This record gives sequence, structure tokens and C-alpha cells, in this order.
Amino acid sequence: MKRYLYISFAFFLITQFSFAQSPEILKLRKFREQNEHSIISEFVSFLSIPNIADDSMNIKRNAAFIMDMMNDRGIQNVQLLSPVTPSKPPVVYGEANIPGATHTIIFYAHYDGQPVNPAQWAKPLEPFKPQLLNGSLEKNASVISFPDNGSYDPEWRIYARGGSDDKGGVSAILNAYNAIIKTGSKLHCNIKFFFEGEEEAGSAHLSEILEKYKSLLQSDVWIICDGPVHQSGKKQIVFGVRGDCHVELTVYASKRPLHSGHYGNWAPNPAMMLAKLLASMKDENGKVAIKDFYADVIPFTSLEKKAIEEVPSVDEQMKKELGISYNEMPGKTLIESINLPSLNINGMQSGNVGKQASNVIPTTATAVLDLRLVLGNDWQKQQQKVVEHIRAQGFYVIDHEPTDDERNAHSKIIKVIVGNDGYNAQRTSMDLPIAKNIISSVQKTTDDKIVLVPSLGGSLPLFLFEKYLNAKTVIVPIANHDNNQHAENENLRLQNFWNGIETMASIMLMQPE
Amino acid sequence: MKRYLYISFAFFLITQFSFAQSPEILKLRKFREQNEHSIISEFVSFLSIPNIADDSMNIKRNAAFIMDMMNDRGIQNVQLLSPVTPSKPPVVYGEANIPGATHTIIFYAHYDGQPVNPAQWAKPLEPFKPQLLNGSLEKNASVISFPDNGSYDPEWRIYARGGSDDKGGVSAILNAYNAIIKTGSKLHCNIKFFFEGEEEAGSAHLSEILEKYKSLLQSDVWIICDGPVHQSGKKQIVFGVRGDCHVELTVYASKRPLHSGHYGNWAPNPAMMLAKLLASMKDENGKVAIKDFYADVIPFTSLEKKAIEEVPSVDEQMKKELGISYNEMPGKTLIESINLPSLNINGMQSGNVGKQASNVIPTTATAVLDLRLVLGNDWQKQQQKVVEHIRAQGFYVIDHEPTDDERNAHSKIIKVIVGNDGYNAQRTSMDLPIAKNIISSVQKTTDDKIVLVPSLGGSLPLFLFEKYLNAKTVIVPIANHDNNQHAENENLRLQNFWNGIETMASIMLMQPE
Repeated sequence: MKRYLYISFAFFLITQFSFAQSPEILKLRKFREQNEHSIISEFVSFLSIPNIADDSMNIKRNAAFIMDMMNDRGIQNVQLLSPVTPSKPPVVYGEANIPGATHTIIFYAHYDGQPVNPAQWAKPLEPFKPQLLNGSLEKNASVISFPDNGSYDPEWRIYARGGSDDKGGVSAILNAYNAIIKTGSKLHCNIKFFFEGEEEAGSAHLSEILEKYKSLLQSDVWIICDGPVHQSGKKQIVFGVRGDCHVELTVYASKRPLHSGHYGNWAPNPAMMLAKLLASMKDENGKVAIKDFYADVIPFTSLEKKAIEEVPSVDEQMKKELGISYNEMPGKTLIESINLPSLNINGMQSGNVGKQASNVIPTTATAVLDLRLVLGNDWQKQQQKVVEHIRAQGFYVIDHEPTDDERNAHSKIIKVIVGNDGYNAQRTSMDLPIAKNIISSVQKTTDDKIVLVPSLGGSLPLFLFEKYLNAKTVIVPIANHDNNQHAENENLRLQNFWNGIETMASIMLMQPE
Repeated sequence: MKRYLYISFAFFLITQFSFAQSPEILKLRKFREQNEHSIISEFVSFLSIPNIADDSMNIKRNAAFIMDMMNDRGIQNVQLLSPVTPSKPPVVYGEANIPGATHTIIFYAHYDGQPVNPAQWAKPLEPFKPQLLNGSLEKNASVISFPDNGSYDPEWRIYARGGSDDKGGVSAILNAYNAIIKTGSKLHCNIKFFFEGEEEAGSAHLSEILEKYKSLLQSDVWIICDGPVHQSGKKQIVFGVRGDCHVELTVYASKRPLHSGHYGNWAPNPAMMLAKLLASMKDENGKVAIKDFYADVIPFTSLEKKAIEEVPSVDEQMKKELGISYNEMPGKTLIESINLPSLNINGMQSGNVGKQASNVIPTTATAVLDLRLVLGNDWQKQQQKVVEHIRAQGFYVIDHEPTDDERNAHSKIIKVIVGNDGYNAQRTSMDLPIAKNIISSVQKTTDDKIVLVPSLGGSLPLFLFEKYLNAKTVIVPIANHDNNQHAENENLRLQNFWNGIETMASIMLMQPE
């Protein structure tokens, strides 16, 4: 009964907003408009520092840059939170303590980026040489100079690794705080800043940091500023994430590459063996054909189901935009599909294609699989389901290069590396008081009704915050949905950057009862 | 009846050899032993010139180098035979005219090599920096210095692109001729030299050259010095080749790379689409599942069948050496398998694997297929069988990047490029008098019974010689079978180089009746 009341109250709140932008937000906006040039200049310098998590030299340079940003803004207690494991990327931390405040909000973003293959970036784009385009590359925008007079069209975009995922988040949070301080707006909550440096490498040492700095990191809620806004362009708040883990497959054939004429038809071809194995993993309707793959799934609550139904449909818009005319699971919408466990091929390679193709039978064929998990799935169990499926296809499964004895004893040999960087899905209840405060804060920044999503298709290691700190997490993303996150030509649309600053500021200005 | 007599006579000749090496050969061998250092030095300089057919600057340097080699040896009428199409690799030609000779033998090899991906070569090997190893890389041999005293172990190998395929052939032919001249051995046939520069690019302009220089290129037989000796280590003569052609497939999904979390399960994955398509092309017994794939095949004659039966079995030896414990078509031997039409995946790629893997749904997936053909197959017809199979799997087949309209209208879109560099198989009759002369000449260089093979698994555009010159072709290969031809770490074993020089010399010294 109590639960029922909560639900009704939540809907009352959501539906009763007038969706008008507050005067406080308009004041912050004016400040931003007057300071776009310095905001962009700082952001470009930040993006120019390469930020792959295993590049420890540059990770240090990024962390130092963020500390400077914080010190410039008068943030207190600025420091690096290093994991126990030496030389792993530190968290950059700082705080703003407000006398008399009863609540504390921690703002999270990450400053590392996904690995890059510069050759795949459209020329003249480069991952770590930020460039301004007068629109979207897909719509044939061109590179333009950064304007001397500081006059930026909000449809322009900055292209660079980390532009949207997630240096854009770091920058939006620190610029939101700056605007509040510089305009003399009044904060009612303590603010903490927490910028991770290893998120794209699976947050392998985040748990060590959370455990080590447990007392420093107490809060009422974590605002996770990562990921894109809704594809409709509306702001969204997300209360959960899918989990994620990986499985890497390498099929072995001949020890040395063979001439496809002298041995073709006789020697096994690893690319064909891998193709047959991968093909066995999904049926023609996109359903994963691995035993018990969809078992363990915990269904949504009725409040969550209702929220899902209210998410604006973008399926047709997205198909048109992406140039596809069907979806992998016919009959299921985008929001339904991404709330199921998934199996996706991230990459597949054997031999060479294009100009480097030659008449050989390759020695190996490799594929990287990405498994997304929903609430109820255990990531290691999910990986094992894949391994068992591979065994059931007649493969001898090993975790190392095959020895000569293994090669002699087994016809189909595969190395399966079950990635150790996985984690489970996580969901925060939408009807907690702090959740409602966040919803109303974000709603104050826009005339559009904001989108509430029980779970993102993407993944963040949110379960760690619950495990080590017993903390609540809510995701408030800011990037444009077509930001090419995780791929070549990553970019951030300026209007999204500006909106993101306002969104973060409005949450900082929250007045919890 | 006449045919029957021929066959009997051929077998009489083959089986009656005493398999002893002739004194003439021993004299040539001694010359080579005394000149190994200069032979190797020249070979290393030759291999240091990059030789990819579309690198026209370096192709010219290679051709000039060969002309110098010929002029040094007193070969007459040395010249470049250029195709009608401008700037395509020329043939390097020369001749040795013998007063009173009634027969003419043309020696063919090619000086261009397969495309290279230097990153795939085992460090410190490099494609165009020839290095000496004290054995085979697979057996953990190491790089050694070229000896100052010129004392070479015949088990040592030279690693470089073109070492075996086919600058080794060019060098063996010219060193054979050099040894004959320098030792004062007597030639009875006119000799012509013909070194092609575009074989690995599909000999696209060879026909133009054969047509243009038809009168210059008259002969009784072409000796094609290319490919490896038999895996048993015995010398072999090959009377035919499989044809070859290519089909390149690119499956299209979303126009831009997508975050596998936000879109995984919904957006089509091109790697999975390609895997399913490739998997449909072969059954579990390695048989190509494409309609009529094995139709059109002309069976072997009884003489050819007999020769095939007498080829020493190397299946178990090869499996052990290659580290595989089964063959793709269970129940069929190597020699049987490579005498069928084949479909082989040369390369397959989508997204990235390894360190560059990222959590995306790739935009495209590509595979290069290599189709080998036997006598009776038409290469263009064989390509069309593949295209029809792809259509039957529900793909919309195009030959260009898909337009937006095509993307909207079709769910499964594939670009299929049917390579225009294909050609048919070819076989020369084993019982022609000139064929018998060649068999007896090669037999004179070894105590082992030589292996006679009706058709090689590999391909050479031999049909062109018949079409434009009405010529006979016989293949006399010299490289070690484990030479990594067409792949990284290509190499030539010195003993094979030495044997190759003797083989070529013995054919040059032939005395036809």
C-alpha cells in the first residue's frame, strides 16, 4: 500500500510540472553565453591530451589538468585518489562544503576514453587533435576554424576522442559549478566531484578506490554524468544500466599461413570455422540461441513498465538516421530490445581484406563478443553459458595458445578468454525522495517533458557504488545521441554541451526538504 | 591405340631411369659451390627492392636490376616487353641463340610479389630487408649474419618477400645459365628468358604482352619456374594448374558505428550477418553448399589418374607439420582435395579485435573469397554461382556503396565485387615428346624418383600462353614447400635454391631428338 502511494506521488510530481525554465537557470545561461570562448578553449586543451587508460603518462597529464581546473574554480580539498594497485589511473577528487547543508551530492564523470584506431577516423579528423565542424560529419559538415570573436553556433560540433564520452561530462560539471560561483547563485547541498580515469578499461580498480576512500565518499546520491540524452533530443534521467562483460574467441588452424591454392579445400580455414560458430549463436530472428541465455532475468516493476511505455518512440527516426530498414529482433522496439541480455560481435578478424588481402588460408580467426546483462544476470555465469555453447559445437576450449599435443589431439581448437572486467546490471528505484528532487531539478531547465528511463542500454559499473558505499546512483547524461561514442569520429554538439552545463548546475542548486 | 602406346612408352621412360646424377650436373654443382657468396649477394640485393605490382617506381627498379643480371651474363637481345596499357609492369626478356638448334625453350618466372602487411612479419623480419636464418622460423631458428667466408649451410634460409615466390625462380634460372656458360657446357636448344612483373596482381596485362610480342615468343615449350617442390622434398614436375578468381563481399548495417549497449540487440550487426552468410557456403564436411559448384568439372585421363596415385602421400606428415589433426573434407586426401574446385576465405574483417576492440556495432563486415577452378570450370560462371547463392540467402546484391534509397528499401544489403582478374585452369598432356624430355632432364639431377603431378593446387595464368601463342607449358617448381608463399615470413631454403639452379640448368642442356 505504501508502495502504491509512492508510485502515485511520483506520477503526480512528474505530470504536474509546468515545464518552464527557472529564472536561476536563465541567469546561468547568460553567464555561459558571455563566456563560451574561454569554456571552449579550456575544453579543447583538455581534449588534446590523449586519454587511453593504459597510457599512464598521458593519464597523469589529464589528471593534472583537471586538478588545475578545480583549483582555478576554488574547489576545496582537491586531490588524487589512487587505487591500491600501483600506477593505475587515479580518481580526481574535490569538494565544495556548504555551511548548514544536510545533503551531499557527488558528481561523477570519467576522463579516460575508448581505445582508438586513428586510421579509421575520417580525414582530416584525429582523435587527439580537437577540431570544430559546422555540423555533423554524416551530414557533410566541414572543418572550420575556432572563431576569434567567440561566436559559436550551437549546432557546431567538436570532434575528438572523449568529446562526449566523457570529458564532456567532466567539463560540463566543472563549468556548471563555475557559473554558480561566478553568478553568486546559492548552493544548499554539499558538492563532491569524482572523476574516474579507468572507466573505459572496465573500471578495474574503482572498487579499490571506493573501499580505500569510503569515509570521504559518503553522499546522498551520485549523479553519473555519462552517455547520451534521448534520441528524441529530450533530456533524460536514467535509473539503471545494463551490466557488461566480454568473451574473446580465437580459432586455431594451421600453424603457418598456407597458400590457398596448394592447400585450399584440404587444410581447415579458421575464418570459416569461426563464421560457423558465430552463426550458431543467434537465430534468424536475432534471438540468442545459447542455452538459458534469457534465464535469470528479473522483470520490471509496474512503475518501470509505465515509464518505459512513456519513453517517446524513436525507432523509425533512428532507422532512417542510421540507414537501416529493419531491426535485429523483428517485433521488438528499441527500448524493449535493449532491456534484454545481448550478444554482440564488437570485432572479427582473420587474415587481411582490401589491398592487403592475399591468397592464403589464415592461421587464426578472432572475434570479440560483448555481452550486455540485465538485472538478475550474473556476468560470470553469462560468460560460462557462451563457453558451454562453444563446447557443444564440438570445440576443444583452452585459455592459451595450443600446444603441439593439443593440436594433435583435437580437431577444432579455440582459445576463449573470458574477460575479467565484467559487472552486473544495476537499478535505483525511481520513487525515492532524492530521485524526485533530481527529476524536478532537471525539469526546471527545459520546456520539454524530460524522459525517464528505468535502465540504459549501455553499461556503467554502478553496482560497485552500492557494494562498497551503499550508495544510490542516478544517471543524468548530456551528450547528443549521435556522438559516435566508442567509435571513430566521436563528437559533442555544442548545444548539448551548453544544456549539460545547465542540467548539472540545476542539480547542484537542489534544495532537498 | 596410338594413345595407348604413348602411355606405355611414357611409363617405360619414367620407370627405367637409373635415377643417377649426371657428370654434367656434378660439374655445374661444383661451380655453384665455389660461387655461393656472389650468388647470395646478388640475390639479397635483388630481394631488397620492394616488388608489389602496383608500386611502379620499385617495379622499374626490379626490371632494371634483372636487365643488369642478364647483361652481366652475356644474354642477347635484352629488353623490356611493355604492355599496351601504359605504366603497367613490363616483362624482362632476353635470349641465347644456339647455332643449329632446332628447339626453343622459354624460361618463365615472375619478379613481383604478393602484397605485404609488414606488421604481421615476425620481428625482426621485414619483407624487403632480406635476412639469413639458421633454419626455419617455425623451428625457432634465429637471424644470423651473412658469413664473410661464403660458407653456407644448405639448411639456412633467406627470409624476404619474393624469396621463394618468385624472385628465387628468376635467380635460379639466370644462375643456371651462368653456370652453363662459365663451365663451358654445351647448349643444344635456343633459350629465351621471360620474367613477368604482374603475376601476383593477376597477370592483368600478360595477354597484351603475349599478343604484342607473339613472333618474339615462339617456342616449343614454356618452363614455368614458380611454386614449391613436393612436400616430400622430392622434385616435381607439374603439367597443369587450377584457375583462380575472387569475390569480395561487404555487408552493410548502420551508417555509423553504434554503441553496443545503447543499440545492441536492436541494430543489425554486419559481422553476424556475414558470419551467417559465410557459414551457409560450406557444409560440415567441407563441401561447398553452393548450387552446381562442382558441375562442369572435366575428369582426369587414366594416365593422369595413375600419376596421381603414384604421388607420395604427405597427408600425415603435413598435418603434423602444420599442427592440424583433421582435414576440411574428411575422407579425401590432399591431392584429391586440391583437384576439386574450392572456396576459401582469404580474409574477413569487421570492427576491431585485440587492443583496438571497442564496444561498438560495426558499420560493415568484409570478406575476400578465393575460388580455385579445375579443368571445365569457367571462372566468371563460378563467380556467378556464388552471387546467386548470396541472393538466395535474402541479400540485395549491389556493386557500389548503398544509397539512402537502397538502405530504406532493403534489409540485408551486400556489395559483391566479382574480381576481374580471374582465369581458368589449364593442363598440358604428360605424353608429348617435349614433356618426356623435360621429365628425363629433371630426373638427371636427383637420385630420388621425381614426382609427376597432372595439376597443381595453385594457379598460374597458363591458359593465356595457349590462347595467344598456342604454346605448351610445364611447371618446374623449386621452392621449399614450407616457404610461407603469399604470407608473412616468406623464405627460401638454400638447398632448394641450389637444387633449383641445377634443375633449370639440366632442362637448358636438353637434347631433343
